Amino acid sequence: MTSRRIPLTALESSASFESRHIGPDAAARAKMLAQVGFGSLDELTAAAVPEVIKSTEALALPGGRSEAEVLAELRALAARNRVLQPMIGLGYYGTHTPPVVLRNVMENPAWYTAYTPYQPEISQGRLEALLNFQTVVADLTGLPTAGASLLDEPTAAAEAMALSRRVGKVKNADAVFLVDADCLPQTVAVLRTRAEPTGVEIVVADLSGGIPAEIAERGVFGMLLQYPGASGAVRDHRAVIERAHELGAVVTVAADLLALTLLTSPGELGADIAVGSSQRFGVPMGFGGPHAGYMSVRETFARSLPGRLVGVSKDADGAPAYRLALQTREQHIRREKATSNICTAQVLLAVMAGMYAAYHGPDGLAAIARRTHRYAALLAEGLRAGGVEVVHGAFFDTVTARVPGRAAEVVERALEAGINLRQVDADHVGAACDETTTREHLAAVWQAFGAGTPDIQALDADTQDALPDALLRTDEYLAHPVFHEHRSETAMLRYLRRLADRDYALDRGMIPLGSCTMKLNATAEMEAVTWPEFAGLHPFAPLDQAEGYLTLIRELEDQLAEVTGYDRVSLQPNAGSQGELAGLLAVRAYHRAGGDTQRDICLIPSSAHGTNAASAVMAGMKVVVVKTSENGDVDTGDLRAKIEQYGDRLAVLMVTYPSTHGVFEEHITDICAAVHDAGGQVYVDGANLNALLGLARPGRFGADVSHLNLHKTFCIPHGGGGPGVGPIGVRAHLAPYLPNHPLQPAAGPATGIGPVSGAPWGSAGILPISWAYVRLMGGEGLRRATQAAVLSANYIAKRLEPHYPVLYTGPHGLVAHECIIDVRPLTKQTGVSIDDVAKRLIDYGFHAPTMSFPVAGTLMTEPTESEDLAELDRFCEAMIAIRAEIDRVGSGEWDAEDNPLRNAPHTAALLGREWEHSYSRQEAVFPAGVAAADKYWPPVRRIDGAFGDRNLVCSCPPVAEYEG
Amino acid sequence: MTSRRIPLTALESSASFESRHIGPDAAARAKMLAQVGFGSLDELTAAAVPEVIKSTEALALPGGRSEAEVLAELRALAARNRVLQPMIGLGYYGTHTPPVVLRNVMENPAWYTAYTPYQPEISQGRLEALLNFQTVVADLTGLPTAGASLLDEPTAAAEAMALSRRVGKVKNADAVFLVDADCLPQTVAVLRTRAEPTGVEIVVADLSGGIPAEIAERGVFGMLLQYPGASGAVRDHRAVIERAHELGAVVTVAADLLALTLLTSPGELGADIAVGSSQRFGVPMGFGGPHAGYMSVRETFARSLPGRLVGVSKDADGAPAYRLALQTREQHIRREKATSNICTAQVLLAVMAGMYAAYHGPDGLAAIARRTHRYAALLAEGLRAGGVEVVHGAFFDTVTARVPGRAAEVVERALEAGINLRQVDADHVGAACDETTTREHLAAVWQAFGAGTPDIQALDADTQDALPDALLRTDEYLAHPVFHEHRSETAMLRYLRRLADRDYALDRGMIPLGSCTMKLNATAEMEAVTWPEFAGLHPFAPLDQAEGYLTLIRELEDQLAEVTGYDRVSLQPNAGSQGELAGLLAVRAYHRAGGDTQRDICLIPSSAHGTNAASAVMAGMKVVVVKTSENGDVDTGDLRAKIEQYGDRLAVLMVTYPSTHGVFEEHITDICAAVHDAGGQVYVDGANLNALLGLARPGRFGADVSHLNLHKTFCIPHGGGGPGVGPIGVRAHLAPYLPNHPLQPAAGPATGIGPVSGAPWGSAGILPISWAYVRLMGGEGLRRATQAAVLSANYIAKRLEPHYPVLYTGPHGLVAHECIIDVRPLTKQTGVSIDDVAKRLIDYGFHAPTMSFPVAGTLMTEPTESEDLAELDRFCEAMIAIRAEIDRVGSGEWDAEDNPLRNAPHTAALLGREWEHSYSRQEAVFPAGVAAADKYWPPVRRIDGAFGDRNLVCSCPPVAEYEG
Repeated sequence: MTSRRIPLTALESSASFESRHIGPDAAARAKMLAQVGFGSLDELTAAAVPEVIKSTEALALPGGRSEAEVLAELRALAARNRVLQPMIGLGYYGTHTPPVVLRNVMENPAWYTAYTPYQPEISQGRLEALLNFQTVVADLTGLPTAGASLLDEPTAAAEAMALSRRVGKVKNADAVFLVDADCLPQTVAVLRTRAEPTGVEIVVADLSGGIPAEIAERGVFGMLLQYPGASGAVRDHRAVIERAHELGAVVTVAADLLALTLLTSPGELGADIAVGSSQRFGVPMGFGGPHAGYMSVRETFARSLPGRLVGVSKDADGAPAYRLALQTREQHIRREKATSNICTAQVLLAVMAGMYAAYHGPDGLAAIARRTHRYAALLAEGLRAGGVEVVHGAFFDTVTARVPGRAAEVVERALEAGINLRQVDADHVGAACDETTTREHLAAVWQAFGAGTPDIQALDADTQDALPDALLRTDEYLAHPVFHEHRSETAMLRYLRRLADRDYALDRGMIPLGSCTMKLNATAEMEAVTWPEFAGLHPFAPLDQAEGYLTLIRELEDQLAEVTGYDRVSLQPNAGSQGELAGLLAVRAYHRAGGDTQRDICLIPSSAHGTNAASAVMAGMKVVVVKTSENGDVDTGDLRAKIEQYGDRLAVLMVTYPSTHGVFEEHITDICAAVHDAGGQVYVDGANLNALLGLARPGRFGADVSHLNLHKTFCIPHGGGGPGVGPIGVRAHLAPYLPNHPLQPAAGPATGIGPVSGAPWGSAGILPISWAYVRLMGGEGLRRATQAAVLSANYIAKRLEPHYPVLYTGPHGLVAHECIIDVRPLTKQTGVSIDDVAKRLIDYGFHAPTMSFPVAGTLMTEPTESEDLAELDRFCEAMIAIRAEIDRVGSGEWDAEDNPLRNAPHTAALLGREWEHSYSRQEAVFPAGVAAADKYWPPVRRIDGAFGDRNLVCSCPPVAEYEG
Repeated sequence: MTSRRIPLTALESSASFESRHIGPDAAARAKMLAQVGFGSLDELTAAAVPEVIKSTEALALPGGRSEAEVLAELRALAARNRVLQPMIGLGYYGTHTPPVVLRNVMENPAWYTAYTPYQPEISQGRLEALLNFQTVVADLTGLPTAGASLLDEPTAAAEAMALSRRVGKVKNADAVFLVDADCLPQTVAVLRTRAEPTGVEIVVADLSGGIPAEIAERGVFGMLLQYPGASGAVRDHRAVIERAHELGAVVTVAADLLALTLLTSPGELGADIAVGSSQRFGVPMGFGGPHAGYMSVRETFARSLPGRLVGVSKDADGAPAYRLALQTREQHIRREKATSNICTAQVLLAVMAGMYAAYHGPDGLAAIARRTHRYAALLAEGLRAGGVEVVHGAFFDTVTARVPGRAAEVVERALEAGINLRQVDADHVGAACDETTTREHLAAVWQAFGAGTPDIQALDADTQDALPDALLRTDEYLAHPVFHEHRSETAMLRYLRRLADRDYALDRGMIPLGSCTMKLNATAEMEAVTWPEFAGLHPFAPLDQAEGYLTLIRELEDQLAEVTGYDRVSLQPNAGSQGELAGLLAVRAYHRAGGDTQRDICLIPSSAHGTNAASAVMAGMKVVVVKTSENGDVDTGDLRAKIEQYGDRLAVLMVTYPSTHGVFEEHITDICAAVHDAGGQVYVDGANLNALLGLARPGRFGADVSHLNLHKTFCIPHGGGGPGVGPIGVRAHLAPYLPNHPLQPAAGPATGIGPVSGAPWGSAGILPISWAYVRLMGGEGLRRATQAAVLSANYIAKRLEPHYPVLYTGPHGLVAHECIIDVRPLTKQTGVSIDDVAKRLIDYGFHAPTMSFPVAGTLMTEPTESEDLAELDRFCEAMIAIRAEIDRVGSGEWDAEDNPLRNAPHTAALLGREWEHSYSRQEAVFPAGVAAADKYWPPVRRIDGAFGDRNLVCSCPPVAEYEG
């Protein structure tokens, strides 16, 4: 018998997830540390992170658990959610995600690990998918220009309000935004949150009889109608729209896409803007999100549309190619002049909704709508037959019934039968039908109402539809071939594969995007998202059906509070931009509560993310820019001067830490103190939190509030440009001002700022990802991940330094978790631009780093902890090889206009033709390190952005365009 | 209010799955029917299918249900399975499938919809993955040549027995196959099933004291040992192996791969052959399968290995390339001289097991093994401390305890604590540890034994490991870089994507393989397979834990019986070949029961699948070939002559229907009658059942027994070359002779032929796929699918007829569900071979049809019902374009040796080089219809098969080979 034995505890810890998440293993880390000049990770981060901010104690989180353990915990949580038939309505509906779309989009890393399509040449697949989405929205709403999705319906409505004010003719300051009383309650609440800081007054009124004269007299710059209404009522809005137009108002109709397959489009009714949700197009409810909100506008407003817009342009061959259009509208360019702080879209969900439409086609969608409506019509008729009063004669899917004093009882009885109805008030109950409704549900609802057991077949023979003749849709929609060609599962599967194959995502290689933290999105983190127990919950379901969710949410809040050093966290903001707004609104509310209503100045360093400034303006603040010094740090002299200058008007300093230059600034605590001394608050933008976790906590080194990006630091995948989650952490004094929700008191403090998102806990459906990440890593694991991220960034900086200047470093010549490579001197010498370098990286099989942020002409590289040494080296070697190519241009060996950099990326199509270049095919497409057999081929050549902006085409172009 | 309304029933049926499964929609079908010359599907199949076999009544199956409904039913069934901690052992163990492998292999259509890698140029990804598997097996077993997987451990042992007889030195007829008493009981049972018909005697004996003299005297041609034993005991087999070798026996060791990471390899112990299961390398138990069995052999036996073997060869550039080696061993060539009827491997599962090894690496695997062993050692020590006798001192993961008279009680108490133990007999209980074991499980087991609550930490300090020093492994294994480079999830994700991208599967385009029925594997059918409630069950779990499975199995048996017209079905055979054997054994048993022991002749038409003949030989029959007439039908004259000739020796006629030529033979009922009149049975090979479902039923038109291929007709994906499921249907008189199982009486009749697979219900884990297919389609849907398949084949035949001769047609000039295109005349005229055409199809973006079966020099095309008209047309146009290319060769316009056909397929690498061909790059890689942006690029050029066979390399080659 052997006497060897290894203690059980050692053996048990061998299955650590940490070693799967962190790319470089111990041997690789040792090599990298040697290159960077440190003996251990602890020594490295001890040197890199300023002493004053360092955490002195370990995170109070349990140790990392194995994937199997965490999946078991998640299953136990899932079992504590009860999925009832969702007949609550109010903008969220049961839907069948086509299995082929579920598996091959929502569960496919080729789709969900992709980045925002800023490099359009390697994003043609999802850009086409988004164009499909835009076409669906444009066609169904009857308004020609639709964006590539907004965060949800209520925020889309808020964006419409802002747009109405901006582009409308009515400019008097006391003009109001008029909201019909039958709008969704969460929409009204979000509008109020968003209106108040900017001095807009919301007036809610029953507009079914027209616009009241006294409101008309005050002036109306915009109006919002719901179609069908929250009550289910389908009204003909033409007259009230016409009247609003007479008053000069811009008219928005919040419309249900499924209903629009049968009803006259908002565009035809006269609306200027349509907004809504595409959730019921195959996207699970997920206890509130994420789903793709939408907005479409009439042609004159196309260039004012908030959010992302995909357009058709052409590539260097003149072939049609997709790209994000009108990027100059983006916040990172316009900053405080931006018209919205929206960055993230809901790309993954928009892709799904677009594919749902392509899979069903116009006939299939209409069939679903007709069936849904038919069930509602029979439901109403059965109620009437049973003696229950039905409030509206015309409706699409939702029936409101009057049951004086009995509403609670009816809802309770339905619940016992496994159905959630909506208790409107003590006397009214709403019941919404959807794609998942069956005869059995109708029977159960009738029972719950005490309406007996009507014979559904007999009822069907006698019941008329309940859609008004005058509103029946007659025009054609979704005529484009894409909505007709992929109708078998085989065809759809191949279409999805073909599109995915055109794109570059994390499943192919590194996406070293500075400030975006494209780390591993582990499968174990992703799995629970599509389990029915998490995916199937209605956001307004009674909370005792959501115990699993609530436990997970509370635990995640606590975990995030612990790692950031804050006292409370709200998970409601469903994007970083929403988090910024929520955080600034909390600051604002805090000052006002303290009587400091005059505090309206938001100091922002010139190097900040543009979104910061846009959010500050939306929070009713005035932006004052603080200079950035030579080394990329905040210019503390200028900061102190500005503090002095604005005195008791100072509301908040908004600063990113580590800085947007990827450096741990030494003076952060002094800066925080100076602001506090002047009565201001400190907002630390958490975009770069991946450099801090486990090493330092913003809530402890001086900040009052931060938003985090769960889609950066906490492993929610970027989804090709969304979803994101942007929770905020606050210190105790700001806790009373966190977001809350009108339909869900448990979602936030009664004294809160109102909702910033439509759902109580925002994009609850993807929170299991971040929860799982923290559980899998544990406190120590999170800390080591941070250290590995810092190590990798410094390793790249050190390897590239001989070839490119590294722009900013902190003490000891170290960067934080990202490094900025300066291409400007090379551009000056050789004419090779950062665009050329970025596109050339595609030929080498990489996604480019962040371009020209925070400094024009530079590349910001963030490798994250998840890239292993082989991939880091592959990247460094590609960059070094490109440097040698630049030199060949500089030396004149290669023509300044005809060289592999200028012509990058090179397509396979190009390779098949006569070769007209001074360099070889081999040099073009198979430079050193690129294996032909595994080459990623970009589907198009470099895209002409300006052409697309001049000739704006934002829905599926006629097929003829692709020919010839 | 509108007066329009559509009846609810019409609206409810709009969500049919049938329209997703069947590619051509109504409009497309009308076009195709016009081309073929019929007015409707019914008219077409009325003409194509002979009157005498047509079913006169509709299938007695419920109507098709929607995907949502079927998924809900599956969830309800899943909820009726109870997954307990599996400590039963006996060859099946709990394992954690790495989530990244689960999602990106097992749930990824790029892997699971691939075909067997007969076209190696477009299968390099899974061939590499299989080479990894072979390397794992070869390294761990210490035997240099391992195959690409066998069906399961027991059948692998049976193959080893056959191999031993074939290659061994002991040739006397009464020599026995000696089996150690500590072998797995299901292995012993399968050996008995397989031995008896071929006249082999199995002797089971306790060999722990050596080989008993009386056995040695009789002669021993082969010996099987289990390592570790079924009891858990780890014995040093060196002495008994040496003795067996002295006797001239070939020695097989059935070994546990996880144990081998710590124990001296079978090769080092002296074994000639190793067999076993790779299930516990990350493959879910699935109530019995599918898993990859393995076999490895010493070098001298390499060319005798049964099943598939991946080898390294080189392509036209001399670059290393993978391919199936030694294909001449395949049954379709050797027929009745074949040494095994194995066709299908378990590719998908072998890929998973190989990836599990790559993800964990040698250190990770050893750590899992050490932990598993440590738990077992502590479990034993705790039992001893609690006064329970532990039978063996040396063991790996399984502890056998002696509890006189208390075994049932202990097992019952463990069960109450959520753990399944093994009741060995009334006095013994087995407890097996595995990767999923935890301290809590140990505590519960101790409790169940009444062994108290030992302090595990204290126990750990005092307990020695229980592996014998003399058997501790000292050599290195898995040193190849592939087992070290993909150890982070990110790295593994990319490796899986890279490999998948090299391959062509159904998610890219059509795989028109005649006789293989590569139809849609719908996601809704696939989903349940990886649900824990189906994936997590041990095959020997008490049946009251498997109610969901049992219900599903019974229902599927009934459904299959209904569609085939048989009385009973057995789902046990886990491949078509096993089904053939089981069916023939049933026939044999029937004859013997009737006293007709002399009936040993199996008539097989010359056009039959080679497997038929190999199976007949394995079933102890003599194969007599019946001629095939000019038109591809059975030569009825010759058949009658043979019947006459063999008289009462006639056992069975084995015939494929429709014929392997893709034609509905007119005389099938006469043929059946003639055989029956002579006292024989009729076996209809169900390979072509996709042409019959809903139109005709073999069990009703004269056959007595058939095997079906659930991986053809019933939507189980091919998995890149397995898993398959080959159930048999029989008429009532054969029902007593269906397979059964020693450990599971419910799995078959007591009078049955014994097990043909290791698990009671074979590959139960994937049966939900076929069950779901039948539920989704309903009787009418299945019928229409058949009609659409027949239509598509005839459409292709009609479109290609002007360009290539279509070889065989039935009455009205129609084919059944596939058509044979004759390339021979063109080859004669131009030198262009079918190989050239097949490889050229790759350049056009297609997988080739079946080559040279059933007729050399032809291509057999089976489009199935799932391909839509656009894809059918794309294929036809490619074939027509290739015909034009052949003509350019024929006319001398293109050189006979240097033309796009001969040089096909063309790689991207080739394109990047100097161009040395008489045709253009464009013609080479972007022929008409191929879009550059979406091109599938084969990773290698045409592969030299003969070179690889001459220089057999079947494990991962040194990295240096890939360089330069």
